[in-house]
Amino acid sequence: MTRILIIGGSDAGISAAIRAREVDPGSEVTVIVADRFPNYSVCGLPFWLSGEVADRDQLAHRTVEGLSDCGITLLLAHRATRLAPRTKRVAAVDEAGRQRMFEYDRLIVATGAVPLRPRITGIDLPGVFFLRTMGDGLALADNLTKTQPRSAFIIGSGYVGVEMADALARRGLEVTLLVRSALLKTLDPALGQVVREECVRNHVDVLDARAVVAIERGTLQRLVVRVAEGRSIDADLVLVAAGTRPDSELASTAGVSLGSGDAIRVNESMETNIPAVYAAGDCAQTLHRLLGKYVYLPLGTTAHRQGRVAGENAAGGSARFAGTIGTQVVKVFDTIIARTGLVEQEAANAGFNPRTAEIESVDHKAYYPGATRMTVRITADDTSRRLLGAQMIGHYRAEIAKRVDVLATAISAKWTVDDLVALDLSYTPPVSSPWDPIQVCAQEWLGVRPKR
Amino acid sequence: MTRILIIGGSDAGISAAIRAREVDPGSEVTVIVADRFPNYSVCGLPFWLSGEVADRDQLAHRTVEGLSDCGITLLLAHRATRLAPRTKRVAAVDEAGRQRMFEYDRLIVATGAVPLRPRITGIDLPGVFFLRTMGDGLALADNLTKTQPRSAFIIGSGYVGVEMADALARRGLEVTLLVRSALLKTLDPALGQVVREECVRNHVDVLDARAVVAIERGTLQRLVVRVAEGRSIDADLVLVAAGTRPDSELASTAGVSLGSGDAIRVNESMETNIPAVYAAGDCAQTLHRLLGKYVYLPLGTTAHRQGRVAGENAAGGSARFAGTIGTQVVKVFDTIIARTGLVEQEAANAGFNPRTAEIESVDHKAYYPGATRMTVRITADDTSRRLLGAQMIGHYRAEIAKRVDVLATAISAKWTVDDLVALDLSYTPPVSSPWDPIQVCAQEWLGVRPKR
Repeated sequence: MTRILIIGGSDAGISAAIRAREVDPGSEVTVIVADRFPNYSVCGLPFWLSGEVADRDQLAHRTVEGLSDCGITLLLAHRATRLAPRTKRVAAVDEAGRQRMFEYDRLIVATGAVPLRPRITGIDLPGVFFLRTMGDGLALADNLTKTQPRSAFIIGSGYVGVEMADALARRGLEVTLLVRSALLKTLDPALGQVVREECVRNHVDVLDARAVVAIERGTLQRLVVRVAEGRSIDADLVLVAAGTRPDSELASTAGVSLGSGDAIRVNESMETNIPAVYAAGDCAQTLHRLLGKYVYLPLGTTAHRQGRVAGENAAGGSARFAGTIGTQVVKVFDTIIARTGLVEQEAANAGFNPRTAEIESVDHKAYYPGATRMTVRITADDTSRRLLGAQMIGHYRAEIAKRVDVLATAISAKWTVDDLVALDLSYTPPVSSPWDPIQVCAQEWLGVRPKR
Repeated sequence: MTRILIIGGSDAGISAAIRAREVDPGSEVTVIVADRFPNYSVCGLPFWLSGEVADRDQLAHRTVEGLSDCGITLLLAHRATRLAPRTKRVAAVDEAGRQRMFEYDRLIVATGAVPLRPRITGIDLPGVFFLRTMGDGLALADNLTKTQPRSAFIIGSGYVGVEMADALARRGLEVTLLVRSALLKTLDPALGQVVREECVRNHVDVLDARAVVAIERGTLQRLVVRVAEGRSIDADLVLVAAGTRPDSELASTAGVSLGSGDAIRVNESMETNIPAVYAAGDCAQTLHRLLGKYVYLPLGTTAHRQGRVAGENAAGGSARFAGTIGTQVVKVFDTIIARTGLVEQEAANAGFNPRTAEIESVDHKAYYPGATRMTVRITADDTSRRLLGAQMIGHYRAEIAKRVDVLATAISAKWTVDDLVALDLSYTPPVSSPWDPIQVCAQEWLGVRPKR
C-alpha cells in the first residue's frame, strides 16, 4: 500500500489526492491542509466579496465529506514545518502547537503561493488587506461587514486588482485602482485600455502612479495612501494585490531545487530533484509549450492539471504534464477579456517573427437580438504562418472565453492561420456568423494572399 | 482579364465572387441571381418569421451597393437556363423572358438546393408552404400577416422544422410538429428526446406518425392533414420542411457529373469533371474529413468555405477545401443543441470502434449566478482513443456552440481524448470551471485508466 502525503489542500493538492485515489484505490492518501477550507475556490473570493455569491461555503469545489468519501484523509488546520526526504518524513503542527511526524512513500508539495508584500511603510496597519487565502477573504469580509467602509484603495491592477475593483464598486464603495505600469499588463496595451475604460465607466477611479510610498493612519479610522507623485488619497481600506510568489521555502530548505522566481523546479512528470518528491500548482514551475521552457505562471487551471499529473504519478502512473500556453480570462463588470498563447511582444522576445491582425465584429449575426461588439486580435508568425496567440474582449455573454479556447486548441495543435480559416465551426444566427469572428480575424491576418 | 461567371447569389456564390475579386482585382466577376435578394441569410428566415428580426432586409449579409463596391456585377432576377461548356457560354433569362448569353473563362455553379416535395396529395394547395428561398419566406410572411393563422402543421422535424416550430409558437400559433422517424435525427436519440421535451414545454404538439397521407381543404379556409395512422389534424397552414436536394439539373444536363444524392461531384479544388467549371455550396458534394469520402451535407458554413475556395481558384489560386466534420448547431426556444464529428452509430458504420461518455454538468461554477445545466457527450475510438464526435445541449447563454467548436478543432487536429484533458483552457468562475465540462466528459471517457 503506497502512502501518499500531500502538503496543501487547494487546487493542486486536492486534484492530486483525487487522482491518486482513482488510479490506485489501494493507496493511502493524506492531505495536510493549512486552514479549514480544503478545495475552496479562491478564484471565487472576489465574487463572494462582491455579494454575487451569497454564502462562502458555496465556494467549496467539494465538501469535506465528499473528499472523505473518496478515501482521502484530510488533516485540517495543520501546518507542515519540516521535510525530511532522506527518512521520508514530514513534520506538521496542529492549531494547538502539537507536532506530529508523517511518513510517506511519495510526497507531493502543493503549498501554493503567498502574496507579494511591496516595501511600503504602513503595510501592516489595520485596514490593509491581502487576498490570497480563504483566511484573507474572511478578514476582508469581516471588515466590510463590521466597518461598512465607503472607499477602498487597491494597489495593483492585475487580475485580482481589477476583479476586486469590480467587486467593491458593486458593493457601493468608491474605489481607487492604482496602476503602476499598465492595467492588466498581460494584455496588449490597446486591450488594456478597453478594460480601463470599462473600469472608469463603472466609476472606478483609475490612478496612474509609479508606486505607493506610504500608508498612514488618517482621521476617523481612515487610511491615507501617499503615492510617488506626491498625491495622497484617503481610503477606508487598502487592498494590496501586487502579485504572488511561490511558497517554496519549506521545500527549498529540505534541498528541493528552485528555478526562476523561486518556484520549485519540476519536470514533465512533476518530479522535483529529490526522489519520491513531486510538486504541483502555484509553488511550482510550469512548462510553457510555446516558449519551450519552464516559467512561473501560477493559474488555477494549471494547478488542477499539474495536480492530476502529480497524483497519477505518485500512485504509480506515468502521466506527463502537457504544459501551459497561458490561457487566461477575467471578467470585469460586464466585459470579458481573455488571452491565450503569446502577445506580440512576448513572441518577438521569444525569437518569433510575429505579426498581429485585429478586427472588430459582433458576436453573432447583427440582425438577431442581443448582438454585441467584440474585438479579436490574432498573432501569428509571419514566416511560418503558425498561430502564436490571441486576445479577445467583449461582452460577458458573447462567448468570448470559449472562442479563446478554440484558439488555445488550434495553437496547441500547432496550426497555421490557414488551418483556422479552413476550420468547420458551428453556426446559427443567434450565436455566431457563417465565418466566426475568429475566422474573420484570421482572414484579415492573411489579407488577400491566396492560400499556399 | 479573367471573366468569372457565377450562377447563384446566395452564400457560396457571393463568397466565391468576393474571394475572386480579392485574389485577382483585375478579374471581371458576374453573378446571376435568381431573385432580388443576393447574399441574404436564408438561415435567418425563421428568426424574421418569428418576429425576432424586425425587418427582412436585416437578413442581408451585405447590400447590393456593398457588393457592387467590391467590383461584382449582379444580374438580379435572372435565371440561368443552359450551360454550354464547350463554347464557355451560359444562357439566362430575365423577368421579362429576354434571353442573354454570357461568356466566361471560369464558371462557378452555386445553384443551391431545392426543398424535397414528398408525394402527398394536396401538397400544392394554397396554405401549404415551403421554406428555402427568400421568396418562400416572403410568401409565408405574407400569409401570416394577411390571414392571421392560429395553427400550423409542420411536416418534418429537422433543423428547419424545429426552428419553425419555435418561430410560429413564438408568434402565438398552435403548432403541431410531425416527427416521421426521430426528432433531429442527426443527434443521438437521448439528446433528441431533450429537444422534444423542450418543444413540448413550449406548447408544441409533437406528433409521431410515419407519414402524411393527404392534405385536404377543410372548412373556413382551413386545411386538414391526414396522417398514416388514421388521424387527421386541422391547421390554418402547413409547412413542409422535409429536407432538400441539390439543384444540380442544369449542370447535369450540360455534362457535369453528379455523385451520391445527385450532388455535383467536385474535388478538393471545387473543380467539377468539366474544365473551367467549379461548383460550391448546397448543389455540390462535400468532403467529410472523418469519413474520408464525399457526402451530401448542405450547410451554410460549408457553402461559405467552399465558395471561398472556388472563387480563389477561379481567380487563378490553388486553394484546397479542407472538408467538413459536420459541425452544426440549432437553437430551439431557450435550448442550444450542437454537434460535431460523428455520432456513435455513424462512427460504427464507418468502421471505427466507438465508445461514448456522457456527463451532466453546469456551464460555469455553480456558485456564480446564472449557472445552467448542460449535457456533454463525447465519442472516441476505443482502440486509438482518437476523438470522433461530440454533442452538447444546454441553455442558449451557456456557450454550448463554442464548446462544440473546441471539440471541432480538436477532432480536426486528430487529437485523442487524453490531448483534450491536457488542454490549457480559460477559466474564471462566471464562465467556466477549472476543468471545463468538455474536459470532465473526456475524463469520464478515460475513466480511471492512467494516461499512456
